[in-house]
Amino acid sequence: MKKYESIMLNKEESQHLYIQLYKSIKDMILLGQLLGEERLPPVRKMAELLSVNSVTVVKAYQLLEQEGLVYKRIGSGTFISSAIIRQAQLPTDVDTTAQQEDLLNQGHIRLERNMINFASATPSADLFPVEDFKQVINEVLDRDKGNAFTYQESQGYYPLRCILKEYTANHGIKADVENIQIISGAQQGIDIIAKAFLNYGDYVIMESPSYTGAIAAFQTRGARIIDIPLEENGMDLAMLETKIKNHQPKLLYIMPNFQNPTGVSYSAEKKQRIMEICKKYKVYIIEDDYLSDLSFYSKDNSTLKSIDNMDQVIYIKSFSKIFMPGLRLGFLVIPKQIYNNLLVAKHTSDISTSGLIQRAFQLYLSKGIWRRHLAYIEASYKERFDKMVECIERYIPSDVHYHLPKGGLNFWFKLPKNISVKALNEAALRENIAIAPGYLFFLNNNQANYFRLSIASLKTYEIQQGMKKLAEIIKGLQLNKDLQDSRENTLNPIL
Amino acid sequence: MKKYESIMLNKEESQHLYIQLYKSIKDMILLGQLLGEERLPPVRKMAELLSVNSVTVVKAYQLLEQEGLVYKRIGSGTFISSAIIRQAQLPTDVDTTAQQEDLLNQGHIRLERNMINFASATPSADLFPVEDFKQVINEVLDRDKGNAFTYQESQGYYPLRCILKEYTANHGIKADVENIQIISGAQQGIDIIAKAFLNYGDYVIMESPSYTGAIAAFQTRGARIIDIPLEENGMDLAMLETKIKNHQPKLLYIMPNFQNPTGVSYSAEKKQRIMEICKKYKVYIIEDDYLSDLSFYSKDNSTLKSIDNMDQVIYIKSFSKIFMPGLRLGFLVIPKQIYNNLLVAKHTSDISTSGLIQRAFQLYLSKGIWRRHLAYIEASYKERFDKMVECIERYIPSDVHYHLPKGGLNFWFKLPKNISVKALNEAALRENIAIAPGYLFFLNNNQANYFRLSIASLKTYEIQQGMKKLAEIIKGLQLNKDLQDSRENTLNPIL
Repeated sequence: MKKYESIMLNKEESQHLYIQLYKSIKDMILLGQLLGEERLPPVRKMAELLSVNSVTVVKAYQLLEQEGLVYKRIGSGTFISSAIIRQAQLPTDVDTTAQQEDLLNQGHIRLERNMINFASATPSADLFPVEDFKQVINEVLDRDKGNAFTYQESQGYYPLRCILKEYTANHGIKADVENIQIISGAQQGIDIIAKAFLNYGDYVIMESPSYTGAIAAFQTRGARIIDIPLEENGMDLAMLETKIKNHQPKLLYIMPNFQNPTGVSYSAEKKQRIMEICKKYKVYIIEDDYLSDLSFYSKDNSTLKSIDNMDQVIYIKSFSKIFMPGLRLGFLVIPKQIYNNLLVAKHTSDISTSGLIQRAFQLYLSKGIWRRHLAYIEASYKERFDKMVECIERYIPSDVHYHLPKGGLNFWFKLPKNISVKALNEAALRENIAIAPGYLFFLNNNQANYFRLSIASLKTYEIQQGMKKLAEIIKGLQLNKDLQDSRENTLNPIL
Repeated sequence: MKKYESIMLNKEESQHLYIQLYKSIKDMILLGQLLGEERLPPVRKMAELLSVNSVTVVKAYQLLEQEGLVYKRIGSGTFISSAIIRQAQLPTDVDTTAQQEDLLNQGHIRLERNMINFASATPSADLFPVEDFKQVINEVLDRDKGNAFTYQESQGYYPLRCILKEYTANHGIKADVENIQIISGAQQGIDIIAKAFLNYGDYVIMESPSYTGAIAAFQTRGARIIDIPLEENGMDLAMLETKIKNHQPKLLYIMPNFQNPTGVSYSAEKKQRIMEICKKYKVYIIEDDYLSDLSFYSKDNSTLKSIDNMDQVIYIKSFSKIFMPGLRLGFLVIPKQIYNNLLVAKHTSDISTSGLIQRAFQLYLSKGIWRRHLAYIEASYKERFDKMVECIERYIPSDVHYHLPKGGLNFWFKLPKNISVKALNEAALRENIAIAPGYLFFLNNNQANYFRLSIASLKTYEIQQGMKKLAEIIKGLQLNKDLQDSRENTLNPIL
């Protein structure tokens, strides 16, 4: 009860007492003075403590409940929702997918308040154009009324596809309106391609390391995955051709610009060569363009689709990083000859993507506000990117290897052999820093000494603080290891 | 150009000329005087015709384009969007799924203006609580700001799951918040269950006929489907047990209340017996509860999940019919022991369902506006249902067989042998009436003489008109057939 004694209610104030009480408790929750699953005092006790009527407390609790800040368990009282707190403080990192989310859910990773989260590739909510989007949602509802909530056609809202055709044209991609398929985010794009293409036992080729959400989508279809190591300018092409020759894969999945997790961009030559190899062996390419827009220092962020003269690239565009992940909206540009298969796969997956969101996004794009936002978000990310590069060069010990990307939000590191990423991860978490261990991104998890740092959700001062601290932690582990090694060396002769 | 001569612009009026022009053209589109893919006159010609400045025309066209009513083809002018017209007039029937949608897309079915659409099981947009929902969306955006657009946790927004727990409790279902999974509509529910459970060659048992979206979702996993004929009070249980014994299916998919397409409801005894059989042979049941709420004359619309004491029912709840299909929101109640598999399947499918929609729906439910809407929609549908029953009894010829349902929105008919549903479908379309041919709902399409009529999108006067006309068409076909038969009989002896 003690912590509630600080609550001050003012009976003179014009604001109702129950509103005052509701606000006080809400603040305590948001300030972390009350924690998830903590029980609120029973109504009667709280009323006594604050010398107010029970009804005041009941009403305050009801408001909190309506906002989802607390919930009732019948017969046992009112409790703080733990999810709310996680929601408010913690961007879930979906790029590291189910595995990491499971860890989170199981409480193995406990992200704390004020944690510096290099693990999350989710943009921070302060970058979202919420007011503009609220405006277009309201315009759409006034204009379309109930039609905004009927089933949308599976292929997607026609005017949205028209405007996306223009959007792709501006990026050098020739697409027909009929070849554009709206999807509920890039993950669904990968999933329906897998559904349309893959039978049990089929081969798929991927980069190693790669996006775990794609690995999972292919595996759930029973596909056999062949991974090809990345070099500084893209896949090892000799190995790619050999593997294609030997296994006749159905699909090649790649991220040619600012690859996740490594940040690698393919050279123009490699892009061209990949197109030729896939043409020769008739392999469809999935190009996952999650981030080519954020090209800060790259001379060439062109997509494979823009040089695809054989119509063999299935192009996936996501707006999660450059707009808002919660939209759950993206699109595919699909080769003509396989268009129908993908439409059926989309239909059996979720019938259609939210019509309201499609209509709102169409209006948003057509008004051109989009360009202003993109300029803003590019500038914000670039500031973070530059700070990160500065910190890496300044703090990271020389025996940690990395290759600086020319854009994007991800940085990839290799620890020296004597430090395991598991040890680093644990030590960092103890210091309230989250990193994404590299083994999450490999098919076989024994790749123990890589890690990914993402700057998507961090402000520049957090990058500064976090990188300095992380470098200290690495040096500390190094030191410990050295001590341990020397002790082992001392001990060994005795044994 | 002729049709544009009727446009009257008033230079005295306070409203800008371009607004007046925009409104005139918009009306022509909505009134059907301009058709999809029709080209608007070039700017200069239109300006001459109406004696206005070119800029006026350009601005009017821009407004139309922003609304998606027209679109530009570079180098060839401005065209009316055909999708807009379809959108405004035609609810896409998703219950009849990809097949029918393909027909629509290919132009084989051309739904016209003022068509009486018994094929669509999509509720009409006039029943949607758009203003209330607009209100909660705005409240959520003001309250949560950017957080409404971050990734939501895959399992679903925690406060929404809390309130859905209460919702299910009110329907006799005991669910833990941890066993509720938010999905992007019922189709996704079926799809992720298929993904989590089925490997190539596994058996699934379904009713015959059944929802084609489910058939498609199972088939895309390479499942082998066994269909069990429906009787008036549910599946043939003897056959069910035999098939289960012989094939050890992974799943049984059923709709125990107001089944789609037949409207059949299971008797309490059959519900109980199915639970026992599935317990005995350890088969998971998928209960698709898309409509149990609309129980007008049924004494027992209880769900299987409410009598599931062995935790073997995966319960799917959709809000498409009783709320709005365009929400793309539903939920699963999942048995504890398989919960994690389904979470992973959801995550690989689309990561999470729109956070904004989840938050808005949570607020909508928590405010209790829900109950008012449900009462309204029940009353509206009941009026349509009663009118339909009246018309069936009054008009439908006696050699057409049917079994009246006690609730729901679907009615199922069997034509006499000498009339094919294909002939009926074609004749009805010529009279501007759409029906859903029965073969869409069977695994093997040679079930030629059933059809489904749905009243979801029709007003009572449309039901009246449509049923009267449909009965006449059936009688006409009967007559033609009789004539033809007698002619054949006359001819035969000569040959």
